Amino acid sequence: MKSIYLAGPDVFLPDARQAGDAKKRLCQTYGFEGLFPIDNDVHPGAGESLAFAISRENEALIQRADIIVANLTPFRGPSADAGTLYELGLARGLGKFLAGYTNVATPFSNRTRQMFGGSDEHARTPSELTDRDGLTIEDFGLHDNLMIEGGIHQAGGIFITHQSHDSERYTDLTAFEQVLKHLKNRMDSVAR
Amino acid sequence: MKSIYLAGPDVFLPDARQAGDAKKRLCQTYGFEGLFPIDNDVHPGAGESLAFAISRENEALIQRADIIVANLTPFRGPSADAGTLYELGLARGLGKFLAGYTNVATPFSNRTRQMFGGSDEHARTPSELTDRDGLTIEDFGLHDNLMIEGGIHQAGGIFITHQSHDSERYTDLTAFEQVLKHLKNRMDSVAR
Repeated sequence: MKSIYLAGPDVFLPDARQAGDAKKRLCQTYGFEGLFPIDNDVHPGAGESLAFAISRENEALIQRADIIVANLTPFRGPSADAGTLYELGLARGLGKFLAGYTNVATPFSNRTRQMFGGSDEHARTPSELTDRDGLTIEDFGLHDNLMIEGGIHQAGGIFITHQSHDSERYTDLTAFEQVLKHLKNRMDSVAR
Repeated sequence: MKSIYLAGPDVFLPDARQAGDAKKRLCQTYGFEGLFPIDNDVHPGAGESLAFAISRENEALIQRADIIVANLTPFRGPSADAGTLYELGLARGLGKFLAGYTNVATPFSNRTRQMFGGSDEHARTPSELTDRDGLTIEDFGLHDNLMIEGGIHQAGGIFITHQSHDSERYTDLTAFEQVLKHLKNRMDSVAR
């Protein structure tokens, strides 16, 4: 049975453990073993030493997994959660199968403009978007920085977008389940 | 001569090319070859195909590099630039030497609270920090999500913090040069 590292800001939900269990059950339904990141409940220690222990165990889980499914829903800003982005890159470097999804369908450039956009007085060309500090806002019709969808694309992976209700932004599993369906189809066609 | 991939939001500066050249010159001063990410000026095409071409070339540059030096200064939110975080993870997965720096010394939890903090009415323990949606704010005294400094630590890398003036947040090279000094010392002690 192939295993999936379940990357995402889901670990910050008030009921993170239940959220992880729900994802693991869905993984089972589609024939996968879900690996949910370690949270700090299970560890002694505090501060930096605890943080580094969690990081070490999560890296080991990613090493062990065959697949990463990253929840790339924007988190406290226009981009995905920082830890999730690092983990997606790590999985890419380790040659894992990459999959990701986002529960916000609005393109990255629109969301960045909404939160940090300026008057475009700094723009060097009529079509260039800039933020309030005059720094370029990339505008490729993608859903995050180009390295993210680019990396998934380069790896021949799966990326699903879906528009959730605001209140279900971090809990809606529609897109996650779609990823699992695609993964199952891929595995079935490889096995055939 | 060891080569360094220069990851960071520097590519979004209005004078990105000059900013890259300044970093490359500093690299040379310390005996390294600096590799600055490709920008879209050199590419034909538009939209997704252009984005994916840039992503492919940046991934190839990271493959080629011996070392990554990531500018992890907070960018449009409490965390570092999304592309930079992905690239740091990719370099970790590829077994490169990892180094990073930030031009903002304030801890991650304080900055996250400032931008997204709530009343902590959702907190499950007296010491837990939560954001305005009730999601946990991690509080380990680090400078970003624990996977970032954790990964650099796991890899035996270098991480430098520095407090720049606000107006020089993305251009101040003090911490970057400190990283280069540390890297040179490491290389010299390995060569001895």
